This record gives sequence, C-alpha cells and structure tokens, in this order.
Amino acid sequence: MAKSDIDIAREADVKPITEVGAKLDIPADALRQYGPDKAKVSFDYLDSLEDRKDGNLILVTALSPTPAGEGKTTTTVGLGDGLNAIGKKAVMALREPSLGPCFGVKGGAAGGGYAQVVPMEDINLHFTGDFHAIGAAHNLLSALIDNHIYWGNELGFDERRVAWRRVVDMNDRALRDIVCSLGGVSNGFPRQTGFDITVASEVMAIFCLSKDLKDLEERLGNIVVGYTRSREAIYARDLKAQGPMTVLLKDALMPNLVQTLENNPAFIHGGPFANIAHGCNTVSATRAALKLGDYVVTEAGFGADLGAEKFFDIKCRKAGLDPKAVVIVATVRALKMHGGVAKDDLAAENVEAVKKGLENLGRHIRNVGQFGVPAVVGINRFTLDTDAELAAVKEYTEQFGVEAIECNHWAEGSKGTIDLANKVVEIVEGGGAQFRTLYEDDMPLFDKINTIARNIYGADEAIADKKVRDQLHQWEKDGYGNLPVCMAKTQYSFSTDPNLRGAPTGHVVPVREVRLSAGAGFIVAICGEIMTMPGLPRVPAANSIHLDDEGLVQGLF
Amino acid sequence: MAKSDIDIAREADVKPITEVGAKLDIPADALRQYGPDKAKVSFDYLDSLEDRKDGNLILVTALSPTPAGEGKTTTTVGLGDGLNAIGKKAVMALREPSLGPCFGVKGGAAGGGYAQVVPMEDINLHFTGDFHAIGAAHNLLSALIDNHIYWGNELGFDERRVAWRRVVDMNDRALRDIVCSLGGVSNGFPRQTGFDITVASEVMAIFCLSKDLKDLEERLGNIVVGYTRSREAIYARDLKAQGPMTVLLKDALMPNLVQTLENNPAFIHGGPFANIAHGCNTVSATRAALKLGDYVVTEAGFGADLGAEKFFDIKCRKAGLDPKAVVIVATVRALKMHGGVAKDDLAAENVEAVKKGLENLGRHIRNVGQFGVPAVVGINRFTLDTDAELAAVKEYTEQFGVEAIECNHWAEGSKGTIDLANKVVEIVEGGGAQFRTLYEDDMPLFDKINTIARNIYGADEAIADKKVRDQLHQWEKDGYGNLPVCMAKTQYSFSTDPNLRGAPTGHVVPVREVRLSAGAGFIVAICGEIMTMPGLPRVPAANSIHLDDEGLVQGLF
Repeated sequence: MAKSDIDIAREADVKPITEVGAKLDIPADALRQYGPDKAKVSFDYLDSLEDRKDGNLILVTALSPTPAGEGKTTTTVGLGDGLNAIGKKAVMALREPSLGPCFGVKGGAAGGGYAQVVPMEDINLHFTGDFHAIGAAHNLLSALIDNHIYWGNELGFDERRVAWRRVVDMNDRALRDIVCSLGGVSNGFPRQTGFDITVASEVMAIFCLSKDLKDLEERLGNIVVGYTRSREAIYARDLKAQGPMTVLLKDALMPNLVQTLENNPAFIHGGPFANIAHGCNTVSATRAALKLGDYVVTEAGFGADLGAEKFFDIKCRKAGLDPKAVVIVATVRALKMHGGVAKDDLAAENVEAVKKGLENLGRHIRNVGQFGVPAVVGINRFTLDTDAELAAVKEYTEQFGVEAIECNHWAEGSKGTIDLANKVVEIVEGGGAQFRTLYEDDMPLFDKINTIARNIYGADEAIADKKVRDQLHQWEKDGYGNLPVCMAKTQYSFSTDPNLRGAPTGHVVPVREVRLSAGAGFIVAICGEIMTMPGLPRVPAANSIHLDDEGLVQGLF
Repeated sequence: MAKSDIDIAREADVKPITEVGAKLDIPADALRQYGPDKAKVSFDYLDSLEDRKDGNLILVTALSPTPAGEGKTTTTVGLGDGLNAIGKKAVMALREPSLGPCFGVKGGAAGGGYAQVVPMEDINLHFTGDFHAIGAAHNLLSALIDNHIYWGNELGFDERRVAWRRVVDMNDRALRDIVCSLGGVSNGFPRQTGFDITVASEVMAIFCLSKDLKDLEERLGNIVVGYTRSREAIYARDLKAQGPMTVLLKDALMPNLVQTLENNPAFIHGGPFANIAHGCNTVSATRAALKLGDYVVTEAGFGADLGAEKFFDIKCRKAGLDPKAVVIVATVRALKMHGGVAKDDLAAENVEAVKKGLENLGRHIRNVGQFGVPAVVGINRFTLDTDAELAAVKEYTEQFGVEAIECNHWAEGSKGTIDLANKVVEIVEGGGAQFRTLYEDDMPLFDKINTIARNIYGADEAIADKKVRDQLHQWEKDGYGNLPVCMAKTQYSFSTDPNLRGAPTGHVVPVREVRLSAGAGFIVAICGEIMTMPGLPRVPAANSIHLDDEGLVQGLF
C-alpha cells in the first residue's frame, strides 16, 4: 500500500525555519517564529529589500476542475522543488487552507505525496492565527455597526440595508440566515442577517490585496457597510473601524514562511474565496517572495477561466506584478471526465475520451495566451495513465506551440519535475512574456463582464436585467467605474451550468446580482448560485478526527 | 505627568523568552516560541518534571471590587517580582485577558505601572491564539449539533432544548438572542439560540480545569449539549465531537510563558468567566509553575467571596492543590467606597469612611480563615492615601491576627513589595496552612449552596423555588451530586444586590436558575442577572485604537 500523505509528512526531515530562511539570506532576527518550523517575516526586513530586482513570477493554474482532481497545489510545490533541484533559487507562494472544510468533506490541504508543505497539521489547523485575526477584525466591524444603531443610529443606517454580515471559520449552515438582536430593548433592533465562512469575508480579500499596513487600513475604511434610507453608502471609516481592525491584523499581514518536504522555502499566506473574491495568496507574500527568490511559483483558485483570469486582471493589475510564465496543470483522468467518462470508469484506458476532453484544455491554453504570457502544460501523472493517453495530450497541445510535459512529483518529489522546471526556465529566459490585462480600467463595467464572458468563457454574451445594469451605472457615477470585475460562477464549466464539461459554446452568462467590494477594489458579478457558507455532510470528517495514544492527529488527512 | 502603562511597557528591557525560561532551567527546545518574547512550554518537558516537589502556592484575592479599583493583577505581579527580588524562585500564574472587552470600555489588562507583564499588546490581542482555538472548538460542536439535526436527528434532540450556544470573542449584544437556520429547507430547522463571549464557554472552563489532553478529551465528551423530548441528556461524545475538539485545542493547552517588566517568569493561560465559571487560570499552568518555581503567585477573579471561594472549592479541590498563603488586596479608595463615599469624593481624606468600609475587608479575612489558609492584607497604595487612613487599616486587621502591609509596586516595582514578599515567606515557612474545602463532596447540592450563602456571604439562607430544587435532586439521582457548586452572583456585594456595599447581613440569596456544566465538573447556581455576552458602550474604546505612523498601537491602554 502507498504511504499516506500524513505518513510521508511525518517522516520528513523538517529543518528549523531559521535554516530555511537562511537559504534566502533572511537573518534569524527577521523571523518571528511560531514554533520551530513556522515564522512570519518582519516588515522591517522586507522593507529593506525594496530596491532589489524582482524574481520571475510563474503562475500555476489548471484546466476546469472535475471530481477526478488535477493537483494544482501539488504541482506548484513540485515545480518549486524542481526549480531548486536544478539550481535555481525558487520560492513558492501558496494560499492558507480554511479551517472549516477540514471537518467537513475533504480533510486538510497542503499538497500531497512527495510534494507537500510542512508542518501540514499546523497549516491546516490554526497555523499562525491569520484567519482568526481576519475573523475577529470582520466581527468587530459587525459589532460596531449594530452598536451604532443601538445607541441612536446617528449615521442613519437603513436596518434593512446593512451590507455587512458576520463570519466564522466553520462549515455551519445554521448560520447562513439568522435574525439577530432579539430579546427586547437591551439587545437592539431585530433584523435579518447571517454568517459567511471567514474566507468569504471582504476583509480576507482586502488582506490579500494590501501592499502594506497603511494600504490595509485605507482599504478597510473603504468597505461599504450599509446604506441610508436615501441609498447613500455608509463606510467602515464612518464608524472609525479601520483603526482597530488594522491593529487586529498587524501581525497577520506579515507573510508566513514554511518549507516543502525537500526543505525549500514556501510562503503560505491568505486564502480568499475563489468565486466572490480573487482566490490568490497575499500580495505581501508574493512581493516578499519576488524580492527573495529568482523564481516564484504561485497558484490561483479553480481553473484558469476563473483563477488565472482573476490573478491577471485583479491581482497583477492592482499589485503591478509582471508574470513571466504559466503552467496549466492537466490530468488524464480529468481530461477523460471532460470527454464524457463517468468517475467510476476512469481506470480504463480511453484515448478517444482524452482527445474529446482536450478541448477544455485547449480553450484554457488559448485564454492564457490573451494575457501575453507563454504557457506550458504540466501533466500530473497518475499510475494508471497509459502512454497512449499521454501521447494524445502532447500531440494536441503542439497546435498552440505549447509543450505538454509529464510530471511525477507526487511519487518522486523534485525528481519528477526536472523537465517541467527546465522548460519553465527556458520560457522565462526566452523573454517572450509581455503581460497585458484583458481589459483596460476605463472600460464600462458591463463591457468588462461581457469581455470576460466572450473572450474567456466562449459565451455569446453576458446578460443582465435592468436592475443590475442600473446598479453598475450608478457605481460608475459614484467613481467605481475603474474597478476590475470579479466573476463568481461555477468552477466546473466555462458556462454557468456545472454539468457542461469540455468547451461549451453558444451559451450566455446571466449576471444575477452585482456587489461592490469597495475595500478590496472590485465589483463582484454573481452568475448562478454562490454559497458563502458551506454545510457539513451527513458523516463529517470530524467524526474520525482525534489524537491517538501517541498524541498524533489522526483522521485529518 | 506620570508615564502611561504602555509607555512604561515600551521602555522595558524585554529579554528573549529563552533567557526567561533559563531562569527556571527550562531548556530552549522545550519552548515553542511565538515571537521572541512568548512561548508555550511543551508537555513532554513538563511531564518529565512529574516527580519534583511542588513549590508553594500563594493566592492573591481582594475585597469586594468597586469602581475605585483594587489592583489585584498588579499586586500579583508586584508580589512575584518582590519574591524574586528577595532571592526566591517565584513564578506567576495569571489569566489571559479576553479580546472583546479591549474594544469596549476598559482597554487591555496586563497589570499596570511598574508591575506589568509583557508583551502587553500581544497578550491583550491574539496572544498565542488560545481563545481563538477555544472558540473554534466550541463552534465546531455547535455546527455538529445542528448538522446532526439537519441530517435526520438520529439522537432525538428536542430542538427547543438544545443546551449549547455559539461563541465569539467580541462584545456583541446583537448576538445574545437570535433565530438561526432560517431561509428554507437547505439551511435546517429554525430555532432560537444565541452567542456568548468566548470566555463564558464551558470549553473555556474545561480547558482551565483539565490536567492533560486525555482529561481534556474526556471532559469535552461529557458536555451536555441538549435533551430529548423525554428529557434524556445528549452528550458531546454522542456526536463524536470530543476528538476533533481536542485536536483543535492540543497546542493551546500548553501553558504560555512570558515575563514581567523585571524579567521574571509568568504563565498567562486560560481565562474563564468569574461568575458562570470559576475565574482562575489553567490547572496546567499552575501545575507547571509549581514544578518550576519555589513560590507560585496566582490570582482569582472578583473579590474573595467569589474568586477565592471558587479557587479553593473548585480548582484546588479538583486539581489537588494545597495553597499555603492568601494575600487579600485592598485599597483605601475602595474601602472608602464601601464606607459610603461617592467616586467623585475619593480624593479627600476620610478616616471614618475607611473605618466603616473595613467591615467588608473583615468579612473577607474571616472567610479566608475558613479554608485554613493564613492571610495577609496587601494595601495597594495610591498617591493620595494618607498615613491616617493607612493606619486605620493596619489597626483594624490586627483583631484577626492578620497584618496589613503597604505596597508600592505600581510606582516602584519589586522595591514596593519587599515587605509583603518577606511576610508571605514568613507565613509559608511558618507552616500554618492546613487547607480544607468549605464543604465535602457528598453534601447535597442545595446544602452546598446554602453553606456558601451563610458562611461566605453572611446571608440568612439561600432560597429557591421547587423547580430549581427538583432539578438539583434530579442531578443528584443522575450521579452529579458530588460536584462542587459554582456561584454566579454580582461581584460588587456579599449579597445579590450590587448596591449593598460593606458587609450586609440579614439578606437571602435567591437561586434563580441552576445549570449543569458536566464537562467542567460543577453545577452553576445563578443568583440574579448574569450577562454572558457584553455589549459595547456608546463610545467604544475601538474608536481611538489605531496604529500610529511608527506602527505602534495607540488607544489600547
């Protein structure tokens, strides 16, 4: 039997984090340690690197996800280790996992096999407390709003239009929709509201997009928390909330340094929802990594239609990043599912299904090309994949001038990604990247949505009723017209129908609702149902999570 | 102008926590660092000390609190520094402050003047994340309950009798009373519930009373989370919740080591509510301190009627602790208020009011005597106290054979507590302590309440209606009769009327409600209104909390 991820992680020769930092020439006193194997890197030190040249930024993205899995995080880690193995100073920049889902379906997430970051238990549990800090900052603002209304409502909140909910880092469907402030005079004015999971908080999105503490504070102040009866926006700064929220987040904003199983440095920092937010790790971690490494390997949530598009159009645009290469991860199994094979039938060789499924990958390759960044496909190999299936992938991608390279990091660590690493270096050194966003800042908001729908999703057009369009026009009048758009749609399809695999055409993208994230700095366009508070399954993973007699965590993975 | 607490703290010569640990011969690899100046001490190391003789345990308690303040934490720190100054190996064991109140009225809490623990900002904000871990464990159980009901309610919860609420570490009155699970079929069954502040969670009380992780897990499993329609109790273990909850708490349970301004070691760990729970730091920190120090100075919440009684009857009873001396803190200002002076008139000398107020102190002295532990009064001196006022206190306490000793730790640090420290050593070395609890385990529950009401509060009796008495009898039948009682009553008076200062007599103690904390291992007797979720004031402290241009926290103190 193959070793489990946790077994492999526990056998790792984990180095003191000061040694890992030393690989990047970080002095020990710039590391604020959280135990022996985790540390935050101080802003004072990072600020001192300001004049250094940036390293080369590589994005790892994927085809549209299927239940077969694609292994994006694993490939990011594997590529980082591979680049180090061929002598490059490479650093990874990843997202922090959310606590809630650990107790639900999937267990933890910190890579897998021989491509993991450690300490995986800590990373999946409280880590350095960032998400708890984000939750506390969010809920302080919530408390300040209801407290303000309670003491006289000087700002004139329309209690039906409070736009700020509460958060908890737990899958708890019972909190999706609540009535608060019951119980009489001393508890305030009853109103309907609810909780989201912490990763869905706008504070999380702000946290991930902020350059520094000043920027963070300003963005927090810009959050729209509600409206008056005459529809005037009320901001967090009107409640003087940005100061104490920033105080709660001051340590959290320092990027977290950990290591891979091969003792290479990885930043794991921030983890916004990939639908109602942009789904990338923090700008502060990416910038730190770029100053410290020659190559920085990062990832973005979901498939390239959502993750890469937002990475380019929101994160890179706003943070002034200049990506040099893209790795699109694909698996033969996922391609088969896009080609129409059911999950239970994936074991059998099926070259035709692979070929049919490749149209999904093809569209992602074309899409990435629109951003001016050269791509390579990384085939994350599974044991049962056949040579014929792999050959079909390699042959297919040639038409785009893109190579498809087999990776075996899960089984072999960096040895399994040497080819991919060499290819990435070749692309970067070739200097072919000329990054551009998909649309300009000054394009009207609905045109931005339409551009994404047509150029990325392959749709005929985006549609929206008058209410939605009027809202967008109002925001343009209010000075928000220059913001990028954050699309919230299913990750399973280019369309808004999660069952439409492959590369559907002829569809339209209905925009059901639009939301302003004025602090984060984007407009969210919601297409279809978006769940911001997951529930637990009938038999939650929590049922089997416990400490064994040796004090080791069991059941988390 | 006098320096502020935060100015003094920022001027401190803070040592690396490894150096502070070295004073207690803790090896560096037994310290799990959280930044340079905070660490958790590993269980492996603490377990290795099992055979060592315990040090001497000193409790610092106080007269009934008034708005004038008494300075119990400050005196605990001052005494600890004083004991170190006279050559004793002394360690402090204190409670962690709650995050919520920092943003409300009072700001932070980590001592004051020259008797502080540092880093005070960290201690008051997220510290090592213990409270966040406790909140997450609590809310996981909450989510598991509603999830269980959602998926068929196999255990047969009566949805009206779910006995487990949710928590957040924030002052948020809007969450006191809510209806959850609104919004239709996919969100569950609507029911009325609410949130408490994290420190009021039974998980916090359990955390503070648990000897080790095994004990913690068992206690968590024993939590009564609700009842069936036929009033059968349902336990957390029925939901298999104790395993994942323990996993969430496994790091948190290690005691936190910090230092005083004079670089002496202090454990700060756990902080349960002092009314519906027992109001002392963790057993794990106290036990660690007793193995590491010759003298351990600890404190308990509120005045001696609540704090000391619970420390003795709950914590010492359950953890097998053997206290050697008690310091009862008093201030001339508080005595004047007990003597009838209004807060605005405290500046003027008033020996008569002091004499009148001393009856409050006298009853606390007598009460402590009932537990067989010798006492000394520590007068926490304020600048405006006159010699005549101090003389009145000293003269008064002589009748009890108890010395009253002036302390000036706020202004002078350890220099101001040398006399008190010497007296404490004299008491301990005199060997006069013969600790006993106030009542035996096998006394009927209502008699326990009555015993506390008469012997500690000076009441004629405790009263309760039939429903309450029937409930107590039922619990006795269910096997909970041997538990101690945790009284929840106002801290401002020996009676249940907060306005009755001094030492009232002839009153009765009405028990409004009783609650079973089966995991923590006590019965809560609620006498009067007990608030488990505070609100924010009209102008919350949050309004002035922010980072200044140098990145320093302003407004927290």
